[in-house]
Amino acid sequence: MSHTLKCFWFPKPLVRNVSTFSEYKNLRIADILATRPLGTQTSIKGWVKTVRKMKDNLFIDVNDGSCPDKFQIVLPKALKPDYLSFGASVEVIGKTTENVNGQLELRADELKILGPCIHSEGFPFAGKVSHPPEYIRKFLHLRSRTSAFSSILRIRSAASRSIHKYLSNEGYLNIHTPILTANDCEGAGEVFLARPENDTHLKDMMKHGLSCEEAYFDKKVFLTVSGQLHLEAMARGLGSVYTFGPTFRAENSRSRLHLSEFYMLEAEAAFMDNLDDLLKMMEKFIKNITTEVANECERDIRMLQDEEAKLHVNNLIKKPFQVLNFNEACSIINQHFEGPKVTEGLNKEQELFLVNYFGKVPVFVVEWPQALKPFYMKLMPDTLKVAAVDLLVPHVGELCGGSVRENDYILLEQKLKRIGQSEGLDWYLELRKFGNIPTSGFGMGFERFLQLLLGIANIKDTIPFPRWPHNCIL
Amino acid sequence: MSHTLKCFWFPKPLVRNVSTFSEYKNLRIADILATRPLGTQTSIKGWVKTVRKMKDNLFIDVNDGSCPDKFQIVLPKALKPDYLSFGASVEVIGKTTENVNGQLELRADELKILGPCIHSEGFPFAGKVSHPPEYIRKFLHLRSRTSAFSSILRIRSAASRSIHKYLSNEGYLNIHTPILTANDCEGAGEVFLARPENDTHLKDMMKHGLSCEEAYFDKKVFLTVSGQLHLEAMARGLGSVYTFGPTFRAENSRSRLHLSEFYMLEAEAAFMDNLDDLLKMMEKFIKNITTEVANECERDIRMLQDEEAKLHVNNLIKKPFQVLNFNEACSIINQHFEGPKVTEGLNKEQELFLVNYFGKVPVFVVEWPQALKPFYMKLMPDTLKVAAVDLLVPHVGELCGGSVRENDYILLEQKLKRIGQSEGLDWYLELRKFGNIPTSGFGMGFERFLQLLLGIANIKDTIPFPRWPHNCIL
Repeated sequence: MSHTLKCFWFPKPLVRNVSTFSEYKNLRIADILATRPLGTQTSIKGWVKTVRKMKDNLFIDVNDGSCPDKFQIVLPKALKPDYLSFGASVEVIGKTTENVNGQLELRADELKILGPCIHSEGFPFAGKVSHPPEYIRKFLHLRSRTSAFSSILRIRSAASRSIHKYLSNEGYLNIHTPILTANDCEGAGEVFLARPENDTHLKDMMKHGLSCEEAYFDKKVFLTVSGQLHLEAMARGLGSVYTFGPTFRAENSRSRLHLSEFYMLEAEAAFMDNLDDLLKMMEKFIKNITTEVANECERDIRMLQDEEAKLHVNNLIKKPFQVLNFNEACSIINQHFEGPKVTEGLNKEQELFLVNYFGKVPVFVVEWPQALKPFYMKLMPDTLKVAAVDLLVPHVGELCGGSVRENDYILLEQKLKRIGQSEGLDWYLELRKFGNIPTSGFGMGFERFLQLLLGIANIKDTIPFPRWPHNCIL
Repeated sequence: MSHTLKCFWFPKPLVRNVSTFSEYKNLRIADILATRPLGTQTSIKGWVKTVRKMKDNLFIDVNDGSCPDKFQIVLPKALKPDYLSFGASVEVIGKTTENVNGQLELRADELKILGPCIHSEGFPFAGKVSHPPEYIRKFLHLRSRTSAFSSILRIRSAASRSIHKYLSNEGYLNIHTPILTANDCEGAGEVFLARPENDTHLKDMMKHGLSCEEAYFDKKVFLTVSGQLHLEAMARGLGSVYTFGPTFRAENSRSRLHLSEFYMLEAEAAFMDNLDDLLKMMEKFIKNITTEVANECERDIRMLQDEEAKLHVNNLIKKPFQVLNFNEACSIINQHFEGPKVTEGLNKEQELFLVNYFGKVPVFVVEWPQALKPFYMKLMPDTLKVAAVDLLVPHVGELCGGSVRENDYILLEQKLKRIGQSEGLDWYLELRKFGNIPTSGFGMGFERFLQLLLGIANIKDTIPFPRWPHNCIL
């Protein structure tokens, strides 16, 4: 056993199984702060954030991940154990009291080190230091220990819950659309292929004339870029449905807005046949989940949000979203934007310009040229426009895309033939054959929503384990 | 335009934009049955399940996917539109009334066909016919239209919600662990490799000396077999955490209990250092979610559950789970089971025998030989056993696996070296270095839970789009 290791090998004498510990009820700091129990004998478990020495006592701030707040422990100096330092995990027992400032604190009877944190061995974080996000991102396995990132993850968890809750209350069923799929939906994004790692195994399974990629499923199989087409199938028996899960793009993009693996919320409203209703539904959804998360995570958000992000969220919650059609959007950009004029779709700069032009209020851009949008969007009568919408927001540009779906069998069949996709999507076409209904829906990039909500510059800091080109750590 | 297509091309004359339709509020059948509004003018949208002709009226049962119930429409014969048949989608307007049996029904003023269902064109389902699951499974894109499968999907949605709700109330944070990962966790299951489909793209990205599979991320990347190791990292800053999402196995198994893509719930309890607490937590979790789903989906479950499944669920909810250690389990099997004796771990037959032996009550088998279990399980003092648990249940055998995690730095390092995994898992080992804590956790196969709850024979009928060897439809 090397010398170095000795520090981490837990020193036996410290592990005292003092029976008093088990007699105390363990409480989470979030619960203590919510219920403010006075004079309660309790145990708290968490990580040391600061240690301040006073005359007779040590004042130790502990956080346990349940909330952004640190809880103050008052420990008589005589009871200080070895290895008490920033980053150590501890169990403390004592009685809750109110200090002169009216704050709840724990008068400790004992403090036990669960795990020391020997900084000289390479712990990347230091107490009272605010590390930049790029630095923290290098230590994915440890970054839940930082205040900022743990706040983000609590908000992420609350926002997920809020999405499920809102859609469920609105009567949408949660559908787990597949990750592995033979369809690549939009034919637009770059996709990942999946095949078994085991080669001998593959050879056993492979049917004559098939490639390695086709061996397991008898066809090439990709990681999903969208669950929409599958949702449309489900909506034709179950009514309105949604899916919320991981989505993949194999693009070589390292932008601050792109990940190779990200989360998308996709909702499909049964019997909805027009853009007006879709816009109403999208705006209501976004206002609702934002309001709920803002209320529920108020303390975490306060730690992260700057004035700019606060303004964005305030506008989003309180102001009606702007609506304009693609032609209007283009002419505003071409008249007032000092950057490049519109040639095809809108680029990120143009998107952000539009939102700023309208006072940083989210903007629905509707009625897009057919050529700019995927095959499944509904052609508007007597035009070459489709009933599509992009929702543009401050800070990130496009947050959602949606459309009324083409439910006319003939038009859809012609379109699929024209783009050479009729073969793999025969099932999708067939949905329009038997008891067909109109549907409309949208997708929202979940990480971009978090970027908007918190003013996070880089999308890599919104997800626990970010994946982007040349980076798949852990 | 071919003759065949004409039937599906919606016949123009039927699309009457009768203004009265928009004046009626659309209600879901679930909401009507819950609130029983009498004399309310409403519109209902859904699919025709049966049409019965009486003297003056047609009696039409409609289902809209919001619940298992069909709602009866009474339509004067004179108002019958063309194409009214089983499977057609319709919108009906009228007034809710109570019939002589006390059932709510809709006295229709008008019925509009939204989409006809021309059976001669190949609609695979027929009215009043109960199709076997193997037959229904061939039509993944249409199977949400069958009563049985739509019930399963509503229960699946409710069970997901219940899992999120329960764990959230217990203070667990929802973590989205990655699908793409460079770790394959257990080193046990067969894994899928992922790489971009686009070859030119790949060549641009590939660094010198790397293979095609390594081009995008600079290393081989797999689809996750478990989020546990990632959860352990998160638990060391956030406290207790869970993940609930898709998981992958590239095995060549077509059993009634295996899928290539399935859902797993994995929970990791921070500061939990012993099997007793883990068993309590698992039992409480399973009893709670089962009870909630059983109550919430009572009508859907009644449609599906046979007497056997009802007994299993009743035992699960009401009886305390059995606990025995691996040695005891082996000796019971070796003494009383007429099938094969235990040689290594337990096989499916032996698992099911044990559960039957204890009166079809779930059985915790604890304290397993180290050699049979993954590296991360905690070695019990002075034994070659690990603090592991398998939860065995009727119908499916193993439903959950869990353990106290090895948090001793030295023991874990030795183990990783011994099995030759120390390199890729240095980050995992390092979690034990800085402010280490004990954690315990378990994983539950979500589809197996649904099989148990509903007595579903084949796991392929519990998930919207099943994937198994040689099968990735849609």
